[in-house]
Amino acid sequence: MDDIDKLGLSTAIAKARKSYQEGGIPIGAALVYHGSSTDPKDAVVLGCAHNSRIQKSSATLHGEIAALEDAGRLKAQVYRGSTMYTTLSPCLMCTGAILLYKIPRVVIGENESWVGGEELLKSQGVEVIVVDNAECKTLMKKFIVEKPEEWNEDIGEIQ
Amino acid sequence: MDDIDKLGLSTAIAKARKSYQEGGIPIGAALVYHGSSTDPKDAVVLGCAHNSRIQKSSATLHGEIAALEDAGRLKAQVYRGSTMYTTLSPCLMCTGAILLYKIPRVVIGENESWVGGEELLKSQGVEVIVVDNAECKTLMKKFIVEKPEEWNEDIGEIQ
Repeated sequence: MDDIDKLGLSTAIAKARKSYQEGGIPIGAALVYHGSSTDPKDAVVLGCAHNSRIQKSSATLHGEIAALEDAGRLKAQVYRGSTMYTTLSPCLMCTGAILLYKIPRVVIGENESWVGGEELLKSQGVEVIVVDNAECKTLMKKFIVEKPEEWNEDIGEIQ
Repeated sequence: MDDIDKLGLSTAIAKARKSYQEGGIPIGAALVYHGSSTDPKDAVVLGCAHNSRIQKSSATLHGEIAALEDAGRLKAQVYRGSTMYTTLSPCLMCTGAILLYKIPRVVIGENESWVGGEELLKSQGVEVIVVDNAECKTLMKKFIVEKPEEWNEDIGEIQ
């Protein structure tokens, strides 16, 4: 991870932490534009958010979808110079959103709790980096033990 | 198409028509629960909505995502007894949402204006029916000619 990645992932983790504190699903994401730069001074956090299934009774506001929504309407070129940071391996919906907008790079906090569409992303040429972050894992594991019904609902699994 | 399909697609088309009248992208969708029944009296429209990129300045409220959001939080079993109706071939984000929730069946108004993730859906065992509906095609073709920038933005294409 370079310094922009540290900024992006820490932004996503802060959102995940907030969601957990609110009783929600602790997954956060951030969409960061940096173009070809690796200097954090050139980075712009376009959008950041957390999963809002519980807080907003939402079936679609996973962390990454919520971050894209927070970023608002953008030109295609902006997505193509951005990285999506997410605390957990992205589900197929969020994977599809990353592919729709041709976001070229995804940094994932962890994929030990659950694995989403990483192989699909890679097959389409997206760079996928999994950093195995301890706080991301701790938050998810606590939540899955505490609220297994909500977690299964979030990933479309029968309880 | 059976009678439930006629109900589902006409609901999606009505939303697409409304969006066009509002100056928005004319794509509508409806999520309809019917279990194993083909009797319209057993069908429940769980959610229906239209693309709201323009109306709500949204980067993620495509027709199908908006219909899922309109349906609210549902148990996995409900999605698995439902059909998604959409006026246009679903993009990869909406395709991914259908796969996330294991919706087994998708009825598409048309795929002449644009083709999304139909092959990915089929590869995962989803039944995909394209009905080549004239009104769906007319609405999309008018919109693409009238507002090409907004259309390209919606599908992540460089203008």
